[in-house]
Amino acid sequence: MIYITRKERFNAAHKLYREDWTQEKNTETFGKCANPNWHGHNYDLYVTIKGEIDPETGFVIDLKELKKIILEEVVNKLDHKNINMDVDFMKGKLASTEILAIAIWDQLKAPIAKHGAELHAIKLFETENNYVEYFG
Amino acid sequence: MIYITRKERFNAAHKLYREDWTQEKNTETFGKCANPNWHGHNYDLYVTIKGEIDPETGFVIDLKELKKIILEEVVNKLDHKNINMDVDFMKGKLASTEILAIAIWDQLKAPIAKHGAELHAIKLFETENNYVEYFG
Amino acid sequence: MIYITRKERFNAAHKLYREDWTQEKNTETFGKCANPNWHGHNYDLYVTIKGEIDPETGFVIDLKELKKIILEEVVNKLDHKNINMDVDFMKGKLASTEILAIAIWDQLKAPIAKHGAELHAIKLFETENNYVEYFG
Amino acid sequence: MIYITRKERFNAAHKLYREDWTQEKNTETFGKCANPNWHGHNYDLYVTIKGEIDPETGFVIDLKELKKIILEEVVNKLDHKNINMDVDFMKGKLASTEILAIAIWDQLKAPIAKHGAELHAIKLFETENNYVEYFG
Amino acid sequence: MIYITRKERFNAAHKLYREDWTQEKNTETFGKCANPNWHGHNYDLYVTIKGEIDPETGFVIDLKELKKIILEEVVNKLDHKNINMDVDFMKGKLASTEILAIAIWDQLKAPIAKHGAELHAIKLFETENNYVEYFG
Amino acid sequence: MIYITRKERFNAAHKLYREDWTQEKNTETFGKCANPNWHGHNYDLYVTIKGEIDPETGFVIDLKELKKIILEEVVNKLDHKNINMDVDFMKGKLASTEILAIAIWDQLKAPIAKHGAELHAIKLFETENNYVEYFG
Repeated sequence: MIYITRKERFNAAHKLYREDWTQEKNTETFGKCANPNWHGHNYDLYVTIKGEIDPETGFVIDLKELKKIILEEVVNKLDHKNINMDVDFMKGKLASTEILAIAIWDQLKAPIAKHGAELHAIKLFETENNYVEYFG
Repeated sequence: MIYITRKERFNAAHKLYREDWTQEKNTETFGKCANPNWHGHNYDLYVTIKGEIDPETGFVIDLKELKKIILEEVVNKLDHKNINMDVDFMKGKLASTEILAIAIWDQLKAPIAKHGAELHAIKLFETENNYVEYFG
Repeated sequence: MIYITRKERFNAAHKLYREDWTQEKNTETFGKCANPNWHGHNYDLYVTIKGEIDPETGFVIDLKELKKIILEEVVNKLDHKNINMDVDFMKGKLASTEILAIAIWDQLKAPIAKHGAELHAIKLFETENNYVEYFG
Repeated sequence: MIYITRKERFNAAHKLYREDWTQEKNTETFGKCANPNWHGHNYDLYVTIKGEIDPETGFVIDLKELKKIILEEVVNKLDHKNINMDVDFMKGKLASTEILAIAIWDQLKAPIAKHGAELHAIKLFETENNYVEYFG
Repeated sequence: MIYITRKERFNAAHKLYREDWTQEKNTETFGKCANPNWHGHNYDLYVTIKGEIDPETGFVIDLKELKKIILEEVVNKLDHKNINMDVDFMKGKLASTEILAIAIWDQLKAPIAKHGAELHAIKLFETENNYVEYFG
Repeated sequence: MIYITRKERFNAAHKLYREDWTQEKNTETFGKCANPNWHGHNYDLYVTIKGEIDPETGFVIDLKELKKIILEEVVNKLDHKNINMDVDFMKGKLASTEILAIAIWDQLKAPIAKHGAELHAIKLFETENNYVEYFG
């Protein structure tokens, strides 16, 4: 068993707020992250796959394939987008890093399995000082 | 003459667009950066001061003072904000990194001069792959 | 179960030495790290919490609260300090990165539990080339 | 139980290819990584040891010793070398990051055990965007 | 006048040697960098442009255009290549970082000028510890 | 004319204080940097040389020679040392980053000139957020 990780990036706007709360309650709970006019981040995304090495290629998964899956299923839907408004797989969800990491896991699990590999971890940096890890 | 640099950070939303253009023309010119629902970045800001060393303190400028100026005049006005909508010194301007760097210069030049030092350069990273430098 | 990590920093002096050994034996064992006049580092500290996401906020723990705990219990006691001389929770202990990481764990475990979250890991970089991880 | 990690670096040439395949099949499988004239990388290697802290020294392992083992067994054999041609412990193997990480594990396990510590993980970066982890 | 910089990357093999010298003299002069079987690096390339801001777009140069030029003229010719053997604009030249930086300048100056901007600097990292800057 | 830079590192203790001032005045002026029991940093030092390329070697200066000079004249005197107490070329000086950068310049200028190259700049990081540049 070996683990291989691919890093990709996306730049997106978001805010932390609940539509069923007033702006006052959102600001009280989420502070400056609830700014109604949005703010944004350069997100760094690490996707880790685990599996056996294919003796023919020396690979667990072809990284070109893994990159293609991550771009199609995640990065192209998030990059230069508004996480709250533009992203189909985040509709109706709070745009916290925790919930975004789980949603990215759900986007990637099946397509990676179809390529014969197993998703092991999502690591998502919102800033250099904060990151979330999810293992399913 | 010696140069001293302080790094600060802010996370903001923006889009590249002109209000006097249609969305079509904005998208044609600025591509995905013109997304009407905004996107955002973790900006890294480097402010460089030049001057003589004060023989009493060994400083060109007290970095605690420099930090305070940068936070008050720039970072607190940009962090967790929308550059196009929320920032007084960017009103009516295109929110490109180039124009933002010049606007930051204009915010900092006088307050730094009041502390007896001279602003030398603004270096502003929009992503790890793109940055602007302005020397006045 | 999801994991969230906060990075903080502190700059401190220390030396590796035992008071019950001669300087000769300390130098023989710890090399240049036993310099009697001290040396120092910019330490990078990563604190990882695990837990369930609160469906109301999308958070495991409010990062502003986590930051406050880390500053009060750890960073404010270490930053711009001498680890061997100035830090109450390191009194009488060897100032190795290993022992410091465990002492930081002991400082943080209870206050984080009081906020309904669980400390998962301490990761402490002494330099870009050396780090320690402790999981309790 | 505590974990300590040492980072080292090496710069090497390699290509992904199998000698029992034609260049065409190698290029079809490995793309630009099969360039017959080689390409290369600045590899970053993280070696993680686990164990109990020696109460006398505050160490799991003396990092000077760990560094010496890594240099002798791994880095000096790989740095400024061709992984496919020059490295005894890679003879006859595919020069993928996955297989190189396992080979590095095999080089380090016994010498580290001789020093009373236990190898826990090899983390090997080929680029800032791709890395492999192996836990034995 | 404002300066804008774009970072790109390439991974390449090279060796430092002169064909008109014996291997002995090459090794004596260039040390392990003269390994006849090559070694390689992850090069980081920073290209800096200077100019006036176009008041219509807020740009000195459209970074998408700059990226395209750098990829076509430089990165696609170097990435996953052997600098001594595969790169037309390095034929017959010593593959030192200094000479490569100047050759990259010569590749980029005219195409950037055609887009109405002026090349200001090439900054080329061979490793995190060594870089070259060239200003024409 | 081309510029080449070598990065080295050292870990040192220091405090900002003047012996001719009381501790109270030192603390009032230098804040937590005046802690009488010292604090410390991982300093990053960038030394930039300028010159013509030697057509025989493709080098401005042999980086192995430059590294040797920097280690002998600067790093070995500062690494794992107390800047105020242990460093001959800092005796009687304030241990600010500005004054340390100038002192490093003075250490390096002549030995580099002896090797036929010219020192261009010293860039010294005290933390990731603060650095000084000196050009003579």
